Amino acid sequence: MTIKSFNPPIRTLMGPGPSDVHPRILGAMARPTIGHLDPLFVGMMDEMKTLLQYAFKTKNELTLSVSAPGSAGMETSFVNLVEPGDTVVVCQNGVFGGRMKENVERCGAKAVMVQDDWGMPVDPQKVEDALKANPEAKLVAFVHAETSTGAQSDAQTIARLAHEHDALVIADAVTSLGGSELDVDAWEIDAIYSGSQKCLSCTPGLSPVSFSARAVEVIKNRKTRVQSWFLDLNLVMSYWGGGTKRAYHHTAPINALYGLHEALVMLQEEGLENSWKRHYGLHLALRAGFEAMGLSLIVPEAARLPQLNTVAIPEGVDEAQVRAILLNRYNLEIGAGLGALAGKVWRFGLMGHSANAKNVIFCLAALEAVLTELNAGIQRGVAVQAAQKLIISQGY
Amino acid sequence: MTIKSFNPPIRTLMGPGPSDVHPRILGAMARPTIGHLDPLFVGMMDEMKTLLQYAFKTKNELTLSVSAPGSAGMETSFVNLVEPGDTVVVCQNGVFGGRMKENVERCGAKAVMVQDDWGMPVDPQKVEDALKANPEAKLVAFVHAETSTGAQSDAQTIARLAHEHDALVIADAVTSLGGSELDVDAWEIDAIYSGSQKCLSCTPGLSPVSFSARAVEVIKNRKTRVQSWFLDLNLVMSYWGGGTKRAYHHTAPINALYGLHEALVMLQEEGLENSWKRHYGLHLALRAGFEAMGLSLIVPEAARLPQLNTVAIPEGVDEAQVRAILLNRYNLEIGAGLGALAGKVWRFGLMGHSANAKNVIFCLAALEAVLTELNAGIQRGVAVQAAQKLIISQGY
Repeated sequence: MTIKSFNPPIRTLMGPGPSDVHPRILGAMARPTIGHLDPLFVGMMDEMKTLLQYAFKTKNELTLSVSAPGSAGMETSFVNLVEPGDTVVVCQNGVFGGRMKENVERCGAKAVMVQDDWGMPVDPQKVEDALKANPEAKLVAFVHAETSTGAQSDAQTIARLAHEHDALVIADAVTSLGGSELDVDAWEIDAIYSGSQKCLSCTPGLSPVSFSARAVEVIKNRKTRVQSWFLDLNLVMSYWGGGTKRAYHHTAPINALYGLHEALVMLQEEGLENSWKRHYGLHLALRAGFEAMGLSLIVPEAARLPQLNTVAIPEGVDEAQVRAILLNRYNLEIGAGLGALAGKVWRFGLMGHSANAKNVIFCLAALEAVLTELNAGIQRGVAVQAAQKLIISQGY
Repeated sequence: MTIKSFNPPIRTLMGPGPSDVHPRILGAMARPTIGHLDPLFVGMMDEMKTLLQYAFKTKNELTLSVSAPGSAGMETSFVNLVEPGDTVVVCQNGVFGGRMKENVERCGAKAVMVQDDWGMPVDPQKVEDALKANPEAKLVAFVHAETSTGAQSDAQTIARLAHEHDALVIADAVTSLGGSELDVDAWEIDAIYSGSQKCLSCTPGLSPVSFSARAVEVIKNRKTRVQSWFLDLNLVMSYWGGGTKRAYHHTAPINALYGLHEALVMLQEEGLENSWKRHYGLHLALRAGFEAMGLSLIVPEAARLPQLNTVAIPEGVDEAQVRAILLNRYNLEIGAGLGALAGKVWRFGLMGHSANAKNVIFCLAALEAVLTELNAGIQRGVAVQAAQKLIISQGY
């Protein structure tokens, strides 16, 4: 056995995440490792909290980065807030609502499912009906930005309904944080989790989370111990929140946190609202290109996520072949459909650093070339120009 | 609020981990991010499995890196193998046995504790007694290399005793993997976990694990679902083990895995046994320096870990002041005592890339200077020479 160093190619990442990681962030990850209890590292963690509060638009004290990917952020939210015997209303309109159900059940609780079609937002009326039918419900959980479909749901309304029925709300913001409007305090979201590798453009592996004072009360007053030692926020709090006297809990992923810190510094430099605007503006350009080609987006306009564009596959096209050609010839990664949408859609991410004019133009040109080669019957020679018009008019 | 990029100092890491990360590993972490389902990334995961099998000395099919720190590797072992109502014999001779107990209880199982003094190895006779007194025990869990004390236990004997009583064995190898003898197959260990940031000299955040065929059978035949979705090996297996058709489970921490891959390539280049020998040889040198100074190691020689040297604090010395001076003036990190040993010992790590002649000489010289300044009553002018003699004679 002789295995050599791994040297990855330079891909353009326009799938559902990870997104293109900026060289500044990669550079930060290569800085010298220091100890997880080093006073300078602890200072960096304090900055990280401030930066995450900025990104989430919250003053929540309990705002930190879970030392594992977004799925662990989801699990952190559920295992800390749910106890055996609880009832949780879970909204499902894609893959991740299903994963929430798994989490609820593994906590020994009951999941009341609110189903919507994949590609549609969560219907608040159904949420209200479920809350009326299950007055004992302790929580409502929903996905703000469904990465598997490209639909965004009305977080503010869902949170309001939950509170009207004395329930807390858990929001999955894996794909929304940094890419489209999100206002944790104004919308009164009690628990929220995200991922480092989407609109923050960091490498995968970390999950920013935030919990309201009300959620913290629930966690502190649990009747049973949190089933996960690693994700128990009562323990994690004393490491992240302990000021200068931090209690050792686990060894933090030092260099990954350097990367997330740098990503958040860049977000602050650009300005959160400017980042939302950039994602939306470039989405308009990409979409104009798709439509000029004759392709259509499956999500209704009002619920479309700018950062995740779900395109119906033209009839007769072998979707996997298209993705393989894009990857192998152009080093361009786009996403396949998942679950109910497998084989029916492609997912084009425009997340974080990937949301730039070069990527939009390149992606449209490469896709047009491949679809033309495969005789997919698209409109030729118009997509790039349609996109460029919007890129110029918006100044990107 | 304006927070700037974080630029850490260059520390020498001789605490209980993280250890010094080699520039080749930091460089690998800064390589371009590709997708977690990219065929080239999947190829790297296959190589990673082979490299981890080499490091663990195992042919176990289920050998992979958990996408979170060592504590999550511990939790992976317990939540997958333990079911509510089970009995687990847990050996405690330091901090991490206590954490194992937490894990067992949070799985709804009973922990039968086998206690040994902090700084001593696990006494196999007590393990046998516990197994005889609890014939229903399903598992024996122990720490091979106690990071909190510097003691190593006889893994082979403990595994044999467990099997004689029809129990499986879980070993914590966070600090032993790559640094001292470990032979998963020959010793018949059923479940083992480690950390990336100790003797592999990678950045913290990943936990290599390996499970025997017998352990996999137990996992596949559980009566209840694994309580953690994120750590459920039935699901993780289909991502790591699925060949070319991998099922998406979570988004792997791509760049962190580049780093671990490079660390393991370097281990393979040096040779596993050579790495063990280097850790031991430099431990002899460091220890000779301590003893020449008049300091003593608290762990009996037969159970001493070369990679973690626990030194008794001389009377009248303010141990925190010494660590602070070493850190602030010399950028040298050493570890404090934990739990029962807090305030009584320092922990000097010689792990991975930190185990080199320069660090040994530098550490002894800096420590001697600081202890002299504080009038700690040590022997002066002899430590470095004593260490150097052994460095030269062994050829390091």
